[in-house]
Amino acid sequence: MRPETRSRLLTACQEIVGADAVISSPDELRVYECDALTTEHRAMPDLVVLPTSTAQVAALVRLSAAEGVPIVPRGAGTGLSGGAIPVDGGVLIVLTRMTRVLDVDLANRTATVEAGCINLAITRAAARRGFFYAPDPASQQASTIGGNVAENAGGPHCLKYGATTNHVLALTVVLPDGTVTRFGDRIADRPGYDLRGVFIGSEGTLGICTEVTVRLLPEPEAVRTLLVAFRSMEAASRAVSAIIAKGIVPVALEMIDQETTRALEAYANAGYPTDAEAVLLVELTGLRAEVAAEGPIVEAICREHDCLLLKAAEDEAERMLLWKGRKSAAGAFGRMTRNYYHQDAVVPRTKLAAVLTEIAEIGRQFGVRVPNVFHAGDGNIHPLLCFDARLPGEYERAMAAGDEIMRCCIRAGGTVSGEHGIGIEKREYLRLMYSEQDLAAMRRVQRVLDPAGLCNPRKIFPEEAVA
Amino acid sequence: MRPETRSRLLTACQEIVGADAVISSPDELRVYECDALTTEHRAMPDLVVLPTSTAQVAALVRLSAAEGVPIVPRGAGTGLSGGAIPVDGGVLIVLTRMTRVLDVDLANRTATVEAGCINLAITRAAARRGFFYAPDPASQQASTIGGNVAENAGGPHCLKYGATTNHVLALTVVLPDGTVTRFGDRIADRPGYDLRGVFIGSEGTLGICTEVTVRLLPEPEAVRTLLVAFRSMEAASRAVSAIIAKGIVPVALEMIDQETTRALEAYANAGYPTDAEAVLLVELTGLRAEVAAEGPIVEAICREHDCLLLKAAEDEAERMLLWKGRKSAAGAFGRMTRNYYHQDAVVPRTKLAAVLTEIAEIGRQFGVRVPNVFHAGDGNIHPLLCFDARLPGEYERAMAAGDEIMRCCIRAGGTVSGEHGIGIEKREYLRLMYSEQDLAAMRRVQRVLDPAGLCNPRKIFPEEAVA
Repeated sequence: MRPETRSRLLTACQEIVGADAVISSPDELRVYECDALTTEHRAMPDLVVLPTSTAQVAALVRLSAAEGVPIVPRGAGTGLSGGAIPVDGGVLIVLTRMTRVLDVDLANRTATVEAGCINLAITRAAARRGFFYAPDPASQQASTIGGNVAENAGGPHCLKYGATTNHVLALTVVLPDGTVTRFGDRIADRPGYDLRGVFIGSEGTLGICTEVTVRLLPEPEAVRTLLVAFRSMEAASRAVSAIIAKGIVPVALEMIDQETTRALEAYANAGYPTDAEAVLLVELTGLRAEVAAEGPIVEAICREHDCLLLKAAEDEAERMLLWKGRKSAAGAFGRMTRNYYHQDAVVPRTKLAAVLTEIAEIGRQFGVRVPNVFHAGDGNIHPLLCFDARLPGEYERAMAAGDEIMRCCIRAGGTVSGEHGIGIEKREYLRLMYSEQDLAAMRRVQRVLDPAGLCNPRKIFPEEAVA
Repeated sequence: MRPETRSRLLTACQEIVGADAVISSPDELRVYECDALTTEHRAMPDLVVLPTSTAQVAALVRLSAAEGVPIVPRGAGTGLSGGAIPVDGGVLIVLTRMTRVLDVDLANRTATVEAGCINLAITRAAARRGFFYAPDPASQQASTIGGNVAENAGGPHCLKYGATTNHVLALTVVLPDGTVTRFGDRIADRPGYDLRGVFIGSEGTLGICTEVTVRLLPEPEAVRTLLVAFRSMEAASRAVSAIIAKGIVPVALEMIDQETTRALEAYANAGYPTDAEAVLLVELTGLRAEVAAEGPIVEAICREHDCLLLKAAEDEAERMLLWKGRKSAAGAFGRMTRNYYHQDAVVPRTKLAAVLTEIAEIGRQFGVRVPNVFHAGDGNIHPLLCFDARLPGEYERAMAAGDEIMRCCIRAGGTVSGEHGIGIEKREYLRLMYSEQDLAAMRRVQRVLDPAGLCNPRKIFPEEAVA
């Protein structure tokens, strides 16, 4: 960016949001170089602005459009695919000061919040009256609902409930030209094109959402949480398929491999067995009678698949401890390896066993450890590629193994992202999944809303295809 | 259309699909002038073509694009908003010869069918193995899945299950330029923009879908169907709100007013009480234990709202008879009035009682009878405006009352279509629901996929706004 452009932008941004809401010194800007993708990926924004209203966001977008400068929206920066990295510089619009809960409407079971509101804060605002917001990404204590919308975030409990797109009813959006519009509706489906669905998961490339209306669900009457250990990943995978085939949809159906259970036990001491190759965490929720009926069926299926251990949480404290263990996986990773690359892919549930075997083989071939803790119920795997960036060649080997794993998942009929998004991380894989016609249809939608290509540029689509 | 253009088109169409699949004589074309909107709305196509493959549809679309001639897709012609009426003439592409079930994949719980497949044929293909396709529009014995996709069709059982968009996983689509593409995925969410969601409900304006992959659900273990009579529509409305507020989502929650129960009893003799102002048909499904737990709660709520009668279907035969009664409503209409205009709108559940009172008042004011049988659980009402087209002024009075009713629903925070679509019927109401910016954003999406405006022209959007 030319210095005079930057200086003009700085003054204009300060006029819009106030001087204390604009960051322009290199030291402070550096905080915003990365998101939660590996630190090898970084880029400096020219300016960072922290607006507090939709009107301010709209004014910032109009200003940037007039100057021909890229804009990149950012929430808490917990994204794992590089979506918040300003690869072409420009103005980073950070929504973390827009955290208000605007409305909780229990008669219609909705909550409307500003886009910078933390995921868990929505549930906190509704919990006293017995309601919750279902999608629960691992980052839910930190990530913003706006970021969840951008990435169509999932989470362990999305097996039963569906991901972000199934729970967001309406959005206030600042389009790339600075107009403020509204997608979806609080009450009912609206006529016309469902642009709500296109916007969710569009990773900031179609505009910036500033307010989000979500569906609230009543807390289930009963919950039953089972910890089940298996001899092999294959046996556990078959049990997963058998449970779903029975017509039972647990609210969560998580699989954890032995390397991970060992690390997370050392870290969290949550009661996970460390002598089994695979552990399943199964949670059932619903009416008391429903859970009472489903529990024994799930237990019988696990026994038919020769489980080594099966125990149910006796009370809420034990249940919370089991979930603490599962949610400690990310913390435990730091003990398992100096650096890691956290992958995200989906495979058909029926191919889980075969794909897991192939991933283990790829790990051996490249000399890379690949522990895996993942949402087995919907086939959403998260191989963790371990490496030590200080040792020459380790990073490259891990990336090469990761590439093989992605290709393996696509060959199995899967997809390259279950919940982390594409960002800059996986753009090239889209060529393996989509024809040129498919990509062209999407790019045309992008261009019509963002003809100048200034809204979070160079995200999602393969590099030359964007040009 | 100029005669030489039409003659060239006729020959070229015959080359693509064979002479027996092209209709060109005025007498035969007249069959395709109307769909199920009132017969006051009609327009002649220049040609009707009945393709049998995606490749043929693509060739027809490319041909029409090259000639600059409109194309209009049509399924069974059961649409209620005029979506299949070729208002600017052109080539009507009728998909009723593309009826094959291509694949039933029970491990992944999907079925893939051609777009001309009848809705109910999907369930028939899966029923032997215990699965079904959930959305059940009243037209399900006649309407095609392609038409259901175009209108995002609903049905009585969509309260629990959601409408067409919640059950369609993937689509093969011929875009307005004749390219064949694929939206969505059979197995998992795919990265990139969710164009599946935009296409569903786009009423044929963004292209023609030729194959549809739907989700199959396992048949529920148990079902309980209740017939409940109330003193007033208001009492029944309050019972509906109370059931939903309790956290119970019946699979169906239908309300029928007294004028309709009297007519359908005369017609179907299904055991509906004719002395009550309002009747609810409530159906619960799920695990045996779940239904056993929910049934008494629903019954208690109905008693708290002073129901006059409450009976549960004792067996499947009695249940089928109750549903036969409900589904006979359309047939009974013919006995109630010489002509009718069947409306479709959604209001917030909490405003149902107030809106129903206002509709009765509007009927009185305009001197129009307005019976109503509708999906109360999701606030989707279907006022039936009765008139006799032979009597001067009756049609106009009915339309004027209908206009008032639509405005009343919008004022209550509702929307102008729950499941019938906009078509040509309700284009102008979009101005009352959307800002110019909202409409502009949608029109830009339309124009990018259909720059020449030849794909089902003059549908959905307000008239001058399209130009």
